[in-house]
Amino acid sequence: MSYKSDIEIAQEAAPKLVQEIAAKLSIDDEFVECYGKYKAKIDYNMLDRYQDKENGKLILVTAINPTPAGEGKTTTTVGLGDALSRIGKKTVIALREPSLGPVFGVKGGAAGGGYAQVIPMEDINLHFTGDIHAVTTANNLIAAMLDNHIMQGNSLGIDVRRIIWRRCMDMNDRQLRFMVNGLGGKANGMPREDGFDISVASEIMAVLCLSKDLEDLKERVARIILAYDFEGKPVTVGDIKAQGAVAALMKEALKPNLAQTLEHTPAFIHGGPFANIAHGCNSIMATRIALKLGDYVVTEAGFGADLGAEKFLDIKCRISGLKPDAVVIVATARALKHHGGVHKTELNNENIPALGKGIENLLKHVENITEVYGLPAVVAINRFPTDTEDELKYIEDRCKELGVNVMLSEVWAKGGAGGEALAHEVVRVIGEKENNFRFSYDENLSIQEKIHAIATKIYGAEGVDYIGNSLNQIKEIEAIGYGNLPICMAKTQYSLSDDPKKLGRPEGFRVTVRNIKPSIGAGFIVAITGEIMTMPGLPKVPSAEMIDIDKTGKISGLF
Amino acid sequence: MSYKSDIEIAQEAAPKLVQEIAAKLSIDDEFVECYGKYKAKIDYNMLDRYQDKENGKLILVTAINPTPAGEGKTTTTVGLGDALSRIGKKTVIALREPSLGPVFGVKGGAAGGGYAQVIPMEDINLHFTGDIHAVTTANNLIAAMLDNHIMQGNSLGIDVRRIIWRRCMDMNDRQLRFMVNGLGGKANGMPREDGFDISVASEIMAVLCLSKDLEDLKERVARIILAYDFEGKPVTVGDIKAQGAVAALMKEALKPNLAQTLEHTPAFIHGGPFANIAHGCNSIMATRIALKLGDYVVTEAGFGADLGAEKFLDIKCRISGLKPDAVVIVATARALKHHGGVHKTELNNENIPALGKGIENLLKHVENITEVYGLPAVVAINRFPTDTEDELKYIEDRCKELGVNVMLSEVWAKGGAGGEALAHEVVRVIGEKENNFRFSYDENLSIQEKIHAIATKIYGAEGVDYIGNSLNQIKEIEAIGYGNLPICMAKTQYSLSDDPKKLGRPEGFRVTVRNIKPSIGAGFIVAITGEIMTMPGLPKVPSAEMIDIDKTGKISGLF
Repeated sequence: MSYKSDIEIAQEAAPKLVQEIAAKLSIDDEFVECYGKYKAKIDYNMLDRYQDKENGKLILVTAINPTPAGEGKTTTTVGLGDALSRIGKKTVIALREPSLGPVFGVKGGAAGGGYAQVIPMEDINLHFTGDIHAVTTANNLIAAMLDNHIMQGNSLGIDVRRIIWRRCMDMNDRQLRFMVNGLGGKANGMPREDGFDISVASEIMAVLCLSKDLEDLKERVARIILAYDFEGKPVTVGDIKAQGAVAALMKEALKPNLAQTLEHTPAFIHGGPFANIAHGCNSIMATRIALKLGDYVVTEAGFGADLGAEKFLDIKCRISGLKPDAVVIVATARALKHHGGVHKTELNNENIPALGKGIENLLKHVENITEVYGLPAVVAINRFPTDTEDELKYIEDRCKELGVNVMLSEVWAKGGAGGEALAHEVVRVIGEKENNFRFSYDENLSIQEKIHAIATKIYGAEGVDYIGNSLNQIKEIEAIGYGNLPICMAKTQYSLSDDPKKLGRPEGFRVTVRNIKPSIGAGFIVAITGEIMTMPGLPKVPSAEMIDIDKTGKISGLF
Repeated sequence: MSYKSDIEIAQEAAPKLVQEIAAKLSIDDEFVECYGKYKAKIDYNMLDRYQDKENGKLILVTAINPTPAGEGKTTTTVGLGDALSRIGKKTVIALREPSLGPVFGVKGGAAGGGYAQVIPMEDINLHFTGDIHAVTTANNLIAAMLDNHIMQGNSLGIDVRRIIWRRCMDMNDRQLRFMVNGLGGKANGMPREDGFDISVASEIMAVLCLSKDLEDLKERVARIILAYDFEGKPVTVGDIKAQGAVAALMKEALKPNLAQTLEHTPAFIHGGPFANIAHGCNSIMATRIALKLGDYVVTEAGFGADLGAEKFLDIKCRISGLKPDAVVIVATARALKHHGGVHKTELNNENIPALGKGIENLLKHVENITEVYGLPAVVAINRFPTDTEDELKYIEDRCKELGVNVMLSEVWAKGGAGGEALAHEVVRVIGEKENNFRFSYDENLSIQEKIHAIATKIYGAEGVDYIGNSLNQIKEIEAIGYGNLPICMAKTQYSLSDDPKKLGRPEGFRVTVRNIKPSIGAGFIVAITGEIMTMPGLPKVPSAEMIDIDKTGKISGLF
């Protein structure tokens, strides 16, 4: 059986003009700034008119720990949005913007899949409206001004061995991870160690997504710590006077982008921070606007629920005051078999015992959402063509045994029509289930207490070990008065533990914190466990080699 | 006396919606892709409808060799366009896009000045429609794929000591000029020397500006030479299979951008290659479209006439088949006094003897345009408040003595109204003067013969010396069959010679060629004389420190 590729399906679609999509949401024309025919930026000043309007219902889509088998979280988010539209609910989707790195590397596009996609997928996957380029430019302007300050006399006394600000590029380019620049003699800078991260891993991206307005953004940028001086005191963006220019560069990027699904459900696609070194959610700005415009808003967070949902709930909801009404946890039979120990090449074969072992990963995430956070949860089983009826029935039975709401989703193959059952279930759960939302920790605890809470409650660890310089770094941050910020855990996405090989529901493990990084502008403290990749590399045969465009402008090879 | 700043004047303007500007030019709606309210991309497929329509008149604005006093070439271009509109001519302006480097460095914005500006100036000076970001991304994707190829086994046998492709960034950042990257061990690339140029100096920018359509762009990109292998054979973009992805990334960038002047004259602002290592003109695509839509098209080229106009005429016109109808050469009394030896601090004082010496610079450029290229020329004296009547009269008299058409321009202070006399003179000259346009050299000459022609005819040199490896490089390029490409001279802009200190009209000098760089994608051979800056640095107090934005989104500090 052969399937159409995502880009083929997307190119067959007949998109509506973005003005029509905006009109569906009754957005006044003066707030709609078109970028071509099918994309628009929405001026956030429109929010002033909606202050008294009640928010719609907020549905967070998250997933089990990701596997090479694929879970389809974005696909489910898009499909659930279309399904809610189909059953008559005024629905808005709120997604992250894809980075170019994965587009040219392994993953391909990130705009959903099959018949549950946002379009125009080529534009969304390529430059879109330029937000990530604005982040890159702002990040690198700060770097250029920092190095220029040092070059021009270094009156702030910056210790070049203690610069923590890195340059960035929206590219998978391992060659730029570690470098010595400023070479070539006196006229060409000061030799020092430096490196590039992928732009979506930069603190500027996190700031963009967590700012409530332009002024807040400028203040957050000014607080960012870039380096330490020879006395060990932090040097900030405010010290090198870059925050005004950075805010000017980010003026348009702060406006949420409107696009649509294949079935014309409005979709805000805005902001795309990494889910390890940053918090992995779309912007507060877009989510807020979506909640004023829709009766139901479906959004997602990066990686599995232990990273993405934890940060959505403990960081984004805390900073914004938002409160989700339900959480959908996506899993596939294939991915659960992988968590049960089945090799990638054997995932097409039925294997109930492995499923039984792997499903523990899913159930732990459900437990976290319902018991730690006090939120209603629905499991969505994203159906693959190779799934057997017995496998699907087994998952359903196990969930029901434990009182877990579960529903099959066929949005990849059928679009919104394949998600109607799921949509009805989510609406039912929001109406009937109690919502006792609480954070997993109090921000006024010490940094160590907060990390302990996440590790034990969410990951199921027995405790936390601190190695290297991490305890000193914690002291330093608490000493400068930032101990009460929430924690952003940088951990492998593949396991509930900090060891990517421990699949399923690991027990009896401890988490090792190696490094603590202040992201004062974003407003969180990053706790790094294990090796965290902040600049990916390209594979042996990069996706970019397959991408092409014909003379009419039609792109091929984007997945 | 105090003047309003450029940004203050621009912010007081009442721009028309870009759809109205497009409608003025009768561009069908289906070809207009709005980017916000005041910018649009124009789909070049519209050209198919205009194949039988005669082109409008093409006016090139160029200048004397630039001085710290400022000449006002962009200001004159914009003002002349507005003046032509005022006298009833259907006029379109075609400018280059500003790079962010100078915006944050010394120069400030590049959208004209005073009452002769293109707007929205903040957007044009900041990200505009993202074209330069697309260039940056395409350039760096090629670099990432090249280094990845080496990392993954280097089957092409690329000699890492002979990589000529550099990364780029749209920023003044001297720290990135020279570096060693790929450090950190086996997983992190191959250690090698590398560096970044400013994006507008990249060959991709030149390709964007010289391509006639998407297919031509893809073919040019594929031909770009990146490095040499261990046998000395060139390795191209086609060899690493990056041209399809690059063309996909450039799809939108190839569409010209439409904006407007303060007086609502339509302005295409598209492409911005450096005028030393590249050819310094706006895109062929935009110029072609402008010529179909307007009866008069006013465009400009970078730096003085010896660089910008020479390349406009010998490279852009040769590649595109375009032919200018008149050339306007801009000078100021202050700048001519500087060429006559007056120090920057003394330029406000009348000094007729210095003017008499400095005017020789202007007259040599006029001679080149009329005698070498066979084109009608008009000198535009861009009036400054400190100019005396005697100075202006002296310039006028000297020009008239030699039969040179000359006219005062007051567009900075008065907008289009201050350029009406100039506009009438340009129209008269186009109607009355003979046009015998010819190139300054035949492309089928040898590379050395072509360089000799430019140096002796245009610069007034006695001859050319080749040092370093330059003669071998010429042999290498002729051996691989690219000897018949036009020459792109990289020379100081401050002098007709290759020594920035030789002002006025130097004589008895020779030009020294140090380096030859093949830009096979762009379609020219770069001959480098002296030190050419391809990555500028920031000054002691960067303009960026003054740029700010208030909570309503109003930007200040952009000049």
